[in-house]
Amino acid sequence: MLTFPREEYLARIAKTKERMQKEGIDCLLISQQANMNYLTGYDGWSFYVHQCVIVSLQQEQPIWIGRSMDANGARILSFLDDENIYEYPDYLVQNPVEHPMHHVAKIIQEKGWDKQTFGVEMDQFYFTHRAYLELEAKLPNAKFVDANALVNWVRVIKSPREIEFMKIAGQVAENVMQAAVDSINVGVRECDAAAEIARAQYRGTAEHSGDYPAIVPLMMAGEKTKTPHLTWTETKFKADEAVLLELSGVYRHYHSPIARTIFLGQNPPPIMTETAEIVTEGLAAALDSIKPGVVAEDVEARWREAIAHSSIVKESRLGYSIGINYPPDWGEHTISLRPGDKTVIQPGMALHLIPGIWYDNVGFEIDASIVVTETGYEHLFDFPLDLVLK
Amino acid sequence: MLTFPREEYLARIAKTKERMQKEGIDCLLISQQANMNYLTGYDGWSFYVHQCVIVSLQQEQPIWIGRSMDANGARILSFLDDENIYEYPDYLVQNPVEHPMHHVAKIIQEKGWDKQTFGVEMDQFYFTHRAYLELEAKLPNAKFVDANALVNWVRVIKSPREIEFMKIAGQVAENVMQAAVDSINVGVRECDAAAEIARAQYRGTAEHSGDYPAIVPLMMAGEKTKTPHLTWTETKFKADEAVLLELSGVYRHYHSPIARTIFLGQNPPPIMTETAEIVTEGLAAALDSIKPGVVAEDVEARWREAIAHSSIVKESRLGYSIGINYPPDWGEHTISLRPGDKTVIQPGMALHLIPGIWYDNVGFEIDASIVVTETGYEHLFDFPLDLVLK
Repeated sequence: MLTFPREEYLARIAKTKERMQKEGIDCLLISQQANMNYLTGYDGWSFYVHQCVIVSLQQEQPIWIGRSMDANGARILSFLDDENIYEYPDYLVQNPVEHPMHHVAKIIQEKGWDKQTFGVEMDQFYFTHRAYLELEAKLPNAKFVDANALVNWVRVIKSPREIEFMKIAGQVAENVMQAAVDSINVGVRECDAAAEIARAQYRGTAEHSGDYPAIVPLMMAGEKTKTPHLTWTETKFKADEAVLLELSGVYRHYHSPIARTIFLGQNPPPIMTETAEIVTEGLAAALDSIKPGVVAEDVEARWREAIAHSSIVKESRLGYSIGINYPPDWGEHTISLRPGDKTVIQPGMALHLIPGIWYDNVGFEIDASIVVTETGYEHLFDFPLDLVLK
Repeated sequence: MLTFPREEYLARIAKTKERMQKEGIDCLLISQQANMNYLTGYDGWSFYVHQCVIVSLQQEQPIWIGRSMDANGARILSFLDDENIYEYPDYLVQNPVEHPMHHVAKIIQEKGWDKQTFGVEMDQFYFTHRAYLELEAKLPNAKFVDANALVNWVRVIKSPREIEFMKIAGQVAENVMQAAVDSINVGVRECDAAAEIARAQYRGTAEHSGDYPAIVPLMMAGEKTKTPHLTWTETKFKADEAVLLELSGVYRHYHSPIARTIFLGQNPPPIMTETAEIVTEGLAAALDSIKPGVVAEDVEARWREAIAHSSIVKESRLGYSIGINYPPDWGEHTISLRPGDKTVIQPGMALHLIPGIWYDNVGFEIDASIVVTETGYEHLFDFPLDLVLK
């Protein structure tokens, strides 16, 4: 049931170990689910309890440590040999006194790794402050260093098979946005449109299963267009209002985000058509600059230059790296297209450019999800770059 | 646009402050999204960046601190006055050097709270180890104590309006499980059934919007019935295999989880019918014991006594408290029905009893979501407590 060939997992682990060696890390303790999946293939919705994968320089395969009831999931879905799958007993779950990390520390001691240097994900959700404190208390001879986005940075260059997955996600994204455009109409309840969107996300395509997105459908109508990140209610869509949509197609946790704006009428206010025009022009300019060798912050600078003639100012970043992910975020937490990010763009990187505008008097979203090629870039989906009038 | 009357938020805050005073906490810093919503009404999918609500004993309303683009969401959806909504600039998002908690610390200093005792959620996801370290470094005169489930324990007794919401979620749950039973058939792709389930979750009922569940539909077929927490693929359902379903109806983030098992055939193996019978009998015995005054661990003991005549042993807890929640978990992280939990059951509590069995040779799930009344309990939904044969 492996999603990728065993060799691909081993290659990812080898790259991870190279980074570990460079940073003087003997053991890397990973709790971020996308990283756990990336390194082992494990794919369960068990990240609401403590669990981890530990990569040790001393052995080829990582070890998986999780709640006992989830161990069979790791046996079925990961490439790991059974001897590398460890369980902690259920009474440790949400136990105010004893902690799952006590069990993790015990396994580390048994493996003889307790005097080594550990890299941990200090600013990733799913590794709590208490998890750190308990590990530190139980492993007094270990040294802990921050390895926050170490695996995320290994993930930043996608393999040919990963790119294939992202293109499938792109096909799903087309179906998803089409479902949104088809279902959003004056008088329709927001929740009923959201239902059609989710249905398209999960169905996928005729050949491939869709998957759950790391962020649920975001849908802002009327007054709510002055902010992103809201969801639906039983409110009905009204004539002559805008609807901002931030969605995604997903295949095996690989994301192709897609954002568009619908105006429910044939006569959008001038401020909306002007904003749409300027933003789309700026997006095109930024895209135009993307090829191997360009620096991340320069892509954003091209956007800013292109819209400098207008009154639009966007304080937030223009985009970020995408790939495999789980809730709560499809962003990779590596590259950000903004001033100061000096990452050199390389083939195999994948980016989501989303110049969202959430002003008090107008909101507008449009985007591009792309993968960098040897000479430029390719779009992950094909959907008109326009304000949609209905 | 308030979900609850302003007075209800103020009552929740008053109860929170009582607990804070008892524990010697001046300021409570909350990053768990369900707690943020519970105390203020704020409801956005922005919990993938750092944000918090701070309850101070010195002022009536909490303050909300979040990413600048999300502040309008807080203005629209929370009951807070605008002066209590603070924004941090976008460049702090996923910035490896500067941290959003630096901005939070600055606001705390401006408020004059920087020499006080802070309660923080040390073992809740969304408050990372680094968030703690940065706060501690920037507020050297503050004292930090663990207030991990303080608000969760305020949430444990539901108000009449919350119970009304949970009953609406129960109606959604009936629709959701019916969609699953209707769509799961031999030859159907798992993803197509998951799509119908999600559609029912988001639609809700004719009167009320559904909402996204804190856990996506869990669906284990064939070999996968030996573990929980897995999701769907493009695999088609086969004749004479079991499908475990762990779903939920949701209304405004209030959950009514629902789990059932479908067998795709008219002749399930004896081990499956026997397991179903014993588990259902044990669940009935546990339910029968629920009324105000009973102790949480005794409910679980009743289950164990009732199935003692069989070979079934369930190591994991029998159930837990439910209510408002967000991904990654609909469990409240308060009451666990297991040995050692001495919580006295009271009217207004809501529990999910889920005696799931995930053996190598048989998997079975069935459940009850209930709310405790003055004299006993009420089911949140009405769905036959049987193995479903199709």
